[in-house]
Amino acid sequence: MNNNNLCPSLIIVGTVAYDAIETPFGKVDKVVGGAASYAALSASYYTQYPGIISVIGDDFNRDFLLDLENHNILLHGLEIKKGGKSFFWSGRYRADMNSRDTLATELNVLATFTPVVPDHWRRCAYLLLGNLMPSIQNAVLNQMEERPRIVVMDTMNFWIESAMEDLKKVLKRVDVLAINDEEARQLSREYSLVMAARKILDMGPRYLVIKKGENGALLFHEKEVFFAPALPLEEVFDPTGAGDTFAGGFTGYLASTGDTSFDNMKRAVLYGSAMASFCVEKFGPERLLNLTRSEIDDRLRQFINLTQFDIQLTE
Amino acid sequence: MNNNNLCPSLIIVGTVAYDAIETPFGKVDKVVGGAASYAALSASYYTQYPGIISVIGDDFNRDFLLDLENHNILLHGLEIKKGGKSFFWSGRYRADMNSRDTLATELNVLATFTPVVPDHWRRCAYLLLGNLMPSIQNAVLNQMEERPRIVVMDTMNFWIESAMEDLKKVLKRVDVLAINDEEARQLSREYSLVMAARKILDMGPRYLVIKKGENGALLFHEKEVFFAPALPLEEVFDPTGAGDTFAGGFTGYLASTGDTSFDNMKRAVLYGSAMASFCVEKFGPERLLNLTRSEIDDRLRQFINLTQFDIQLTE
Repeated sequence: MNNNNLCPSLIIVGTVAYDAIETPFGKVDKVVGGAASYAALSASYYTQYPGIISVIGDDFNRDFLLDLENHNILLHGLEIKKGGKSFFWSGRYRADMNSRDTLATELNVLATFTPVVPDHWRRCAYLLLGNLMPSIQNAVLNQMEERPRIVVMDTMNFWIESAMEDLKKVLKRVDVLAINDEEARQLSREYSLVMAARKILDMGPRYLVIKKGENGALLFHEKEVFFAPALPLEEVFDPTGAGDTFAGGFTGYLASTGDTSFDNMKRAVLYGSAMASFCVEKFGPERLLNLTRSEIDDRLRQFINLTQFDIQLTE
Repeated sequence: MNNNNLCPSLIIVGTVAYDAIETPFGKVDKVVGGAASYAALSASYYTQYPGIISVIGDDFNRDFLLDLENHNILLHGLEIKKGGKSFFWSGRYRADMNSRDTLATELNVLATFTPVVPDHWRRCAYLLLGNLMPSIQNAVLNQMEERPRIVVMDTMNFWIESAMEDLKKVLKRVDVLAINDEEARQLSREYSLVMAARKILDMGPRYLVIKKGENGALLFHEKEVFFAPALPLEEVFDPTGAGDTFAGGFTGYLASTGDTSFDNMKRAVLYGSAMASFCVEKFGPERLLNLTRSEIDDRLRQFINLTQFDIQLTE
């Protein structure tokens, strides 16, 4: 199978990495991770041929690359650095599973990563910019021949603190910013998420998703707000990658439907949340490797049961 | 107007008190408070003649009692102790508004409170047992001539720690327990709210509402779960009484409809949440004094916009 000439339905720029994770439920010393791994697997359930732009060392597990290819994920933009070591992150979750401490971050091949969008990918209509240095996110946008129809981006507190000027430039060029509540507060300097959203929407993005972990996600657009809870789960085993899985499912669903109405954005939030609810059930992206359509539909049905009600109001 | 012979649509047992409150937005030294005050005002928008069982000292503000009567709240069960001092609570909210420190609790007349259900109230079909010593909650239930159709109760960590045996007895006699997430975890000794709910439903109540403050509320019943977010507000000014306002609106709505189906319980959660969204806008119960039906409907419409979506799944 050679998919090298295919144009992806969606480009995902982000890390492909190794993680060491400790949660109250267990510990793994080395498991495949990285935002692009989670996002691409998640997207692959909704749209065929998402493509990854990333870098790994030649220490990386070939079996996982085959897993990605088996999910029709295009790897033409994945650079493999000879003699290089893959990005490594290690973290430990606290008892409440909502906060974590980073124990180690070894950039390795990521330290010199300059993403190159393959020529035949440059007219791709959907682009997901994972959490990377804002100047790199900008550089990716510069390589696109046409402005993609939808650009979704993530960022983190580190860039808000250290690269705000570059970050502001990217924000003006994207459609959807998907960040967590802490990041939204830090970026806007507002505690109230409603006030934060207003300020952030003024910075550029037309849509803002604020992810609140086990407390769900808010979608803001102009004067509209939509809220999707997280599914109440018996056990959250490992939250690593849940946000990336959400973003991949969200953007993958948009790419598959080509519909950017607010109503469809709402659905995208739910399709993304459904994928995230699987992600947290196992260490790493394992749970995302073998899902069936009926398992995913079952989660969506749970969202319907969880949130839908019938109230009749007179006008 | 003499309502002394009326049987209430709903009995609310709880505190009527004075509070001193400090939030990041301001400070009041003396404002009317107490669970029964909030709950009764809230209920009064859905059901006529909720009745309060409580105790105050003769230091208490008569104007507020008139306010209650103007909301058709029956006060025949409100004992006024001559020479007594009303219950006083003082607390300070932290910057995140989700946690607070109690600075003072002066029981005063509450220390010797033995609630007496007026004779002609003892066949009332709806009963809300506010957070009081479990043996007192039991004593109220013992005075009812018939088991009410729906008994809703609240409790707190203090009773879970110090009066678990009595608490277990009350739990077996109620239909709905409405507590916050911390209390649910403490009562069940389970961190996962899904596991906690399962254990708590085994202790007696048929329905469990877990209130999560700005993160909404979960309703559990058998295998069913329903989630209602809190409305995203620009400003939460003072969260005091929000949980009691929720419980009052919830039970008041049930009393007004007489429908205890799960679908109607869902609606009750939303009607309660709508009232809570007003409560937090001002210090004390002020915002609950002059609401209009159209303001309440407007909040319910906001819930619909916030949560409703359209996903078509094949069977």
